[in-house]
Amino acid sequence: MTDAPITVALLGCGTVGAAVARRAVERAELFAQRAGRPLTLTGIAVRDVSRARDLPGVPSSLLTEDAESVVDGADVVVELMGGMEPARSLIERAMAGGSQVVTANKQLIAHHGLALHRMAAQHGVGLDYEAAVVAAVPVLRVVREALAGDQVTSISGIVNGSTNYILDLVARLGVPFQEALERAGRLGYLEADPAEDLEGLDAAAKIVILARTAWGVDVTLEDVQREGITRLTDADFEQARGTGQVIKLIASAWSSGPAAQPRVELAVRPVMLAADHPFAQTREGRNAVVIEAESAGALRLHGAGAGGDETASAVLGDIVQAARRVAALH
Amino acid sequence: MTDAPITVALLGCGTVGAAVARRAVERAELFAQRAGRPLTLTGIAVRDVSRARDLPGVPSSLLTEDAESVVDGADVVVELMGGMEPARSLIERAMAGGSQVVTANKQLIAHHGLALHRMAAQHGVGLDYEAAVVAAVPVLRVVREALAGDQVTSISGIVNGSTNYILDLVARLGVPFQEALERAGRLGYLEADPAEDLEGLDAAAKIVILARTAWGVDVTLEDVQREGITRLTDADFEQARGTGQVIKLIASAWSSGPAAQPRVELAVRPVMLAADHPFAQTREGRNAVVIEAESAGALRLHGAGAGGDETASAVLGDIVQAARRVAALH
Repeated sequence: MTDAPITVALLGCGTVGAAVARRAVERAELFAQRAGRPLTLTGIAVRDVSRARDLPGVPSSLLTEDAESVVDGADVVVELMGGMEPARSLIERAMAGGSQVVTANKQLIAHHGLALHRMAAQHGVGLDYEAAVVAAVPVLRVVREALAGDQVTSISGIVNGSTNYILDLVARLGVPFQEALERAGRLGYLEADPAEDLEGLDAAAKIVILARTAWGVDVTLEDVQREGITRLTDADFEQARGTGQVIKLIASAWSSGPAAQPRVELAVRPVMLAADHPFAQTREGRNAVVIEAESAGALRLHGAGAGGDETASAVLGDIVQAARRVAALH
Repeated sequence: MTDAPITVALLGCGTVGAAVARRAVERAELFAQRAGRPLTLTGIAVRDVSRARDLPGVPSSLLTEDAESVVDGADVVVELMGGMEPARSLIERAMAGGSQVVTANKQLIAHHGLALHRMAAQHGVGLDYEAAVVAAVPVLRVVREALAGDQVTSISGIVNGSTNYILDLVARLGVPFQEALERAGRLGYLEADPAEDLEGLDAAAKIVILARTAWGVDVTLEDVQREGITRLTDADFEQARGTGQVIKLIASAWSSGPAAQPRVELAVRPVMLAADHPFAQTREGRNAVVIEAESAGALRLHGAGAGGDETASAVLGDIVQAARRVAALH
């Protein structure tokens, strides 16, 4: 047992990374209580150290363009760069060096989660990514831990905030569909490639990660029956309105067959829902997920599915959990 | 590392205990996958072995009236007897012997949680009780783990199913209040001492446990400003209806002051809510909790707050987590 600080390295310092760094400094006393040992930021890898950043309380000497040096020797490595490379190589380097890894990188986990989990097991380190799925809503933790003694039968929900914002504008405020699409774009609510949101690719990645967590199955993005919202028309919304219904983009996964070897089906598609359905009442950019389990029945989770500070909450939760593991080991 | 089964002892075999035992046998293969080693029931302590029980698949030779012999040597001890004694002594015996402890005993934890946690820390064992608060809804785990990197500012909710059933009968189906009270009693929805539910004692115990988990403060049942539903009259319900509102029994806890040394206030009382408030829409015996945290914003959880199989789901989740700890240790 030692009292030495647990070292935390950040890769990336965009909106989420900056929020994580600020909160790590602000909440240092709280995190020391919760992890049993103080946490200390030892480096923040960025593409361009000269760029101005809003990091009150965070020593600017921590910023560096040398990501590998930041990774090496850190107890916990937190990847918030996004994209496939160099994120993947740096995570692999961290695991090979015995670091616990936390990431918010949804596409990386959706594409390479299985290989990364194998590598984490081989090196005896943790790999956590609560922030990759529905930001602050702790749906992965609920599936993996709270329901560890139960058998999940289905998961469904509104897991993409941008499309929900658009559909809510149309349904609740009567904004024409095309105008709602444009408004979301202007407000910066859509990913750099809008198809990520509008064609349901983002939602598909999330439901794939959820299904793997719930059933331990090797599903991929290709297994998702996927239809986005771009083919909807004002006539569809009128029809829904006329029958007292609302259109929502629903991601879902359901299992059949024996529990130890389940068959899992996955879909992302627009669905018409009665106005008093809990998903119908999920407004603006909020997310909602229902997990059905054999014993627990239906569990509903609802909260912010995006936002810098909201996503940072999930990342910081994983960091403190990883720090607890480090404290228990040494 | 060994492949030897992890031994699990059950204390108590009422509705929840029987559901736990049945599911442990039914889901043996699943639990072995999830814990990394098989789990095996080594004993079930009951008051009267001759009583008939519905335990398909569970060898009746496991039943015994000798609770101490069941505790000794088990890797995980699961207390589902309820009440203070002998539950407390048996849990202390289990911890002293190095067993992980899981319990669903709300009143024991509300009264003696602090002393039991000290003893667990001293012996280096886990003490978990997700099922003690809102059954299958994993609110303790969300507060303790998912929000480990955040700062909870308030927790509020409908945490007692029986009173919600009564209030929902009156508000939604127009049943007179006295008749609704009697119906809940006849259906067996009230505790042996109905004041537990009706005077808010059950809700108070839950909010005390939640507040301790969120803020690490030493609050007790005496700190709760408590008012049950027994002083409500039909006139109150008419008034609510007239203004489009609904009366719900809300338990709440909120913090002020510095995060490392917060001041916490606790209340249980009937509250009038607008009809479109998420709590107003919580029907029948269901429970709902909103956790507000500085970074995450508002997280809403909703699900079954009672029921044998639903409570067993939470107990089994804690058992598998405890088994994972045992597997990691040896």
